[in-house]
Amino acid sequence: MSFVYSYTIRLSDTDAAGVVYFANILTIFHEAYEEFLATEGIDLNGLIQEGSVALPIARCSLNCLKPLVCGDRVLVNLALQSLRDRGFELSYEVVAQSDPKIISARGSTRHVCIDPQKRLKVALPKQIARSLQSLPRAVEQ
Amino acid sequence: MSFVYSYTIRLSDTDAAGVVYFANILTIFHEAYEEFLATEGIDLNGLIQEGSVALPIARCSLNCLKPLVCGDRVLVNLALQSLRDRGFELSYEVVAQSDPKIISARGSTRHVCIDPQKRLKVALPKQIARSLQSLPRAVEQ
Amino acid sequence: MSFVYSYTIRLSDTDAAGVVYFANILTIFHEAYEEFLATEGIDLNGLIQEGSVALPIARCSLNCLKPLVCGDRVLVNLALQSLRDRGFELSYEVVAQSDPKIISARGSTRHVCIDPQKRLKVALPKQIARSLQSLPRAVEQ
Amino acid sequence: MSFVYSYTIRLSDTDAAGVVYFANILTIFHEAYEEFLATEGIDLNGLIQEGSVALPIARCSLNCLKPLVCGDRVLVNLALQSLRDRGFELSYEVVAQSDPKIISARGSTRHVCIDPQKRLKVALPKQIARSLQSLPRAVEQ
Repeated sequence: MSFVYSYTIRLSDTDAAGVVYFANILTIFHEAYEEFLATEGIDLNGLIQEGSVALPIARCSLNCLKPLVCGDRVLVNLALQSLRDRGFELSYEVVAQSDPKIISARGSTRHVCIDPQKRLKVALPKQIARSLQSLPRAVEQ
Repeated sequence: MSFVYSYTIRLSDTDAAGVVYFANILTIFHEAYEEFLATEGIDLNGLIQEGSVALPIARCSLNCLKPLVCGDRVLVNLALQSLRDRGFELSYEVVAQSDPKIISARGSTRHVCIDPQKRLKVALPKQIARSLQSLPRAVEQ
Repeated sequence: MSFVYSYTIRLSDTDAAGVVYFANILTIFHEAYEEFLATEGIDLNGLIQEGSVALPIARCSLNCLKPLVCGDRVLVNLALQSLRDRGFELSYEVVAQSDPKIISARGSTRHVCIDPQKRLKVALPKQIARSLQSLPRAVEQ
Repeated sequence: MSFVYSYTIRLSDTDAAGVVYFANILTIFHEAYEEFLATEGIDLNGLIQEGSVALPIARCSLNCLKPLVCGDRVLVNLALQSLRDRGFELSYEVVAQSDPKIISARGSTRHVCIDPQKRLKVALPKQIARSLQSLPRAVEQ
């Protein structure tokens, strides 16, 4: 099953150079991930409030290929790069809604599953692992 | 004609107090305004690139009524508070998608129409004035 | 005692129109308030973690007088507009470091003191009230 | 010559998980880079306004080692990873002001020098190349 997130670039995403500020592309990646979790019935805010498990990002990377401007309509394609007992890595591709061959950005986020109080790694909840396995597999870069 | 914008609260909208950081609600207001312009066929980025007209915010206000958390699905109701030769004021109401009687925030933005090079007030383009007139009227606060 | 916060406008504060995105000025106001609390020995993160008291913003307003660009060095003058048992209102003025008569923005934030679990108003801690009283008084607008 | 940027974590940098939102660390990296340029007398906003040269980020990466909370005082150590005719790569390390052995984050940004109108690579201005050469060299990772 593929997961695709629709997004419109907003003025607040841009900077004085006229295009999207680089770090905001990572925020758009994370929005796609949040929407994926919601679609799978996983309540991120509930997990945070409960305080038993957190999924912070240990590492991320971003390649900017084509600048995006305010008003651009894009799709974010989400894929699973790796899944381990205590974490996972997702990859993202931002393409134009008008032409999916126009790729604006690619990147990845590596998440670790931790106990947020002790900040120690713990096993990834089964429901989350199962949901992630439904994603298309990314070729390891 | 009423204009309603759908939005989902993202983790990046929140802060360590667990709820949406206040200034981000104004950004959500502005997104609703941007989507309204796009729906009316007004190309905000085109206007900025052209450099003949800009619509900066001269004044804004925000009332926070009920905190919002990551994952909340809201609607933003847009209304026209006033329309003048060289500017306009919009009002916003953020309500829960599940129950529009639950109001999270209210506020307004007052825009002036300027020549961005000279930073002097100029007449609002007719197409924008016409589009704004299609919005429901807000009671002046 | 006056409290003045120094700040440099960053690229991430700006948008494609070339100047600071309006909502980010409110974030700069809040930074000044955070630095004031830190200077007074009040640990905002400690308060949040403890969970006994929170100081959310119930209302804010902003007047934009002169646009700011990336690299601008500004001062934020903080003043106390009102102090009540269960809340307070601060006012802010952003001026150029090179010439304090050049005012870029003015605004205010009204904070309520609440029990964050019950979301009910509670008395403002005495240490915070005392610190706020050390600020210059703003004329009520 | 080493370049060190002082920064205080703000509430707006954090998210509901209680710590700094990952993408905001990249924004802090970029602030350090902006301050370095300013120190070297390079006017980033002037370059953007002039429109002859832009230095967008083609690639960035981030490793999060230790979470940061609101109020934390950090230093960002800037180093030059590589310098080419038409671009450069910087590396960053975020450490605690109280103890520089406590490393919170490491990362890098790769910039390309372009003509912003044509979006084609051009030679890096000599003044910028010279300034970058004054930075300590990072070991290629």
